[in-house]
Amino acid sequence: MNPRSAGERPFGEDELLAAIRKVLSGSGPGVVIGVGDDAAVVARGGGDGVLTADILVEGVHFDRALSSARDLGFKAIVANVSDVAAMGGSPRYALISLVLSAEIEAPWVMELYGGMLGACEEYGMTLVGGDLSGGPAVVVSVAVTGEVAGNRAVTRSGARSGQRLVVTGTLGGSAGGLALARAPAAKVAEALGSDWGRALLDAHFRPHARVGEGQTLAQLGATAMMDLSDGLALDLSRLCSESVAGARVDLSSVPVAPELRRLAAALEVDPLELALSGGEDYELLAALAPQSVAEASDRLGERFGVPLSDIGEVTDGRGIVAVDAAGGERPLEAKGWDHFAGR
Amino acid sequence: MNPRSAGERPFGEDELLAAIRKVLSGSGPGVVIGVGDDAAVVARGGGDGVLTADILVEGVHFDRALSSARDLGFKAIVANVSDVAAMGGSPRYALISLVLSAEIEAPWVMELYGGMLGACEEYGMTLVGGDLSGGPAVVVSVAVTGEVAGNRAVTRSGARSGQRLVVTGTLGGSAGGLALARAPAAKVAEALGSDWGRALLDAHFRPHARVGEGQTLAQLGATAMMDLSDGLALDLSRLCSESVAGARVDLSSVPVAPELRRLAAALEVDPLELALSGGEDYELLAALAPQSVAEASDRLGERFGVPLSDIGEVTDGRGIVAVDAAGGERPLEAKGWDHFAGR
Repeated sequence: MNPRSAGERPFGEDELLAAIRKVLSGSGPGVVIGVGDDAAVVARGGGDGVLTADILVEGVHFDRALSSARDLGFKAIVANVSDVAAMGGSPRYALISLVLSAEIEAPWVMELYGGMLGACEEYGMTLVGGDLSGGPAVVVSVAVTGEVAGNRAVTRSGARSGQRLVVTGTLGGSAGGLALARAPAAKVAEALGSDWGRALLDAHFRPHARVGEGQTLAQLGATAMMDLSDGLALDLSRLCSESVAGARVDLSSVPVAPELRRLAAALEVDPLELALSGGEDYELLAALAPQSVAEASDRLGERFGVPLSDIGEVTDGRGIVAVDAAGGERPLEAKGWDHFAGR
Repeated sequence: MNPRSAGERPFGEDELLAAIRKVLSGSGPGVVIGVGDDAAVVARGGGDGVLTADILVEGVHFDRALSSARDLGFKAIVANVSDVAAMGGSPRYALISLVLSAEIEAPWVMELYGGMLGACEEYGMTLVGGDLSGGPAVVVSVAVTGEVAGNRAVTRSGARSGQRLVVTGTLGGSAGGLALARAPAAKVAEALGSDWGRALLDAHFRPHARVGEGQTLAQLGATAMMDLSDGLALDLSRLCSESVAGARVDLSSVPVAPELRRLAAALEVDPLELALSGGEDYELLAALAPQSVAEASDRLGERFGVPLSDIGEVTDGRGIVAVDAAGGERPLEAKGWDHFAGR
């Protein structure tokens, strides 16, 4: 491990490794042995370890024509950080294994690492190693370790009837940003000149993980939590399934990203639909006691400037019911975002 | 994380995930939350954490026509375990991210997991999560975490002039096995009927990592250690470079795998050359005080039935000198095994 490489490259493999080694100091808080040995060695705090991994494949999860290498690297880290946040934990270390196809040039790889390092800095993490290979397409494989206070990790399975369902931030922005990025060039150019357009593109290409927010919700007694990576409708169905519970969702309380109204004027999109079924928002969904919601909302607002929305309640039943503003009820379809919808 | 999937599959993705979930109990010593949540949560012992990752790409690191899925899975874990062993550590948990191409069928994937789980059992590890995606080729991305007594990890950089260089086991068997697997079918069939042929194929397809051996060498004062994944000549040059030291290697003391003599009668291979430059033996190379070598050799023999060879000494100079049986000297070329040599 620790970038070595196999596979033919158009540029010198030694040069690339040397360049990567330069970018990866491998030093950071708690790092005993960083990049360059057989394995990294890190000091460990108290509490339990949190382990997660995600793999991103060109043509499946990202399109190099749409996403800059820097944004791709940033988002690859954020997606993993978000999984740690969803347990109420703190991310600490990242391992990056990369597959590079023959047409990839060294500056692209440096930008990718730049984005990953930027995200590591934002979340107080250190990139301690990984691996490198040639191959038929770009693959970014990330593993992140973190920690959480002993026996305090928040799973998906602890939601109980009568609790409120809360969601951080706003939803649908990432899917809106992707729709915008794929729109005709003139529309994209126009949107880039607007605050709402840039906000949507940022939501997709430079998302945030809710680490402090997750810890705050855990401290305030959240008994179930997960991150919204595949859309509220599908992810809520998973949380309910793991908790053996149902839910009633007030559609008028779902925090639809406000920029989607502007997008809907430019493209044929349904803001509520994007908020329910769009993926990669990386907001947190949690189950809280009713009496804790106001305090949680206050703390998230004060500490992080992030809104918390009460979107409904956990029920005894097994189904998920959506209630519209007029009081009409319908089953909420567990419709998934697959990461390459729209193709 | 924790097998979810993206990408089109010829079989139902839900069925595959359900099958994988069945194979991955996700429970094991220290596992607080296993497969199926946003992230895994594990109890942590004392000491420092050890982190390593390796990525294996079809057509670069393995050939599905030569390697069974079970062997591939086994070896993918062993390669990472070997990196932990080379620090003097103990492996604990594995995360597996997989990319599957369209022609892969579910039974192949089950066999792959079977091999990974077999290796996890052999090394006392638990597979706690990962990710799954479609893509243009099979990619097996493994991250392993482990632990090592605080500040006792053995790096590559601690070799000092006057120490002896020792190697566990025998070398070149893996490269010999690969050469045999690629030989004309009649020769392979003949070799399969012989103990030496099966031993070589096993050395390549079902290697062992030297975990207990690494810990024993660390306890006996090894100040530098690494695993031999790219061949003794290249790996020794790395150890010397990190230690700012040189080496004299007695070629007659290099533990050439004995089966290679039989192979050399059947195929045009040079046993010593395979032992020096063949990769993937996953034996350990360490620097020990001269007075510790005999005890280390005794302990490895008694505890693990594994020989330890004293192959030479660490020197002040920067170069690596090979000394042949007649006393002749030549520089030992840092010739690498690249993992797809022979293609």
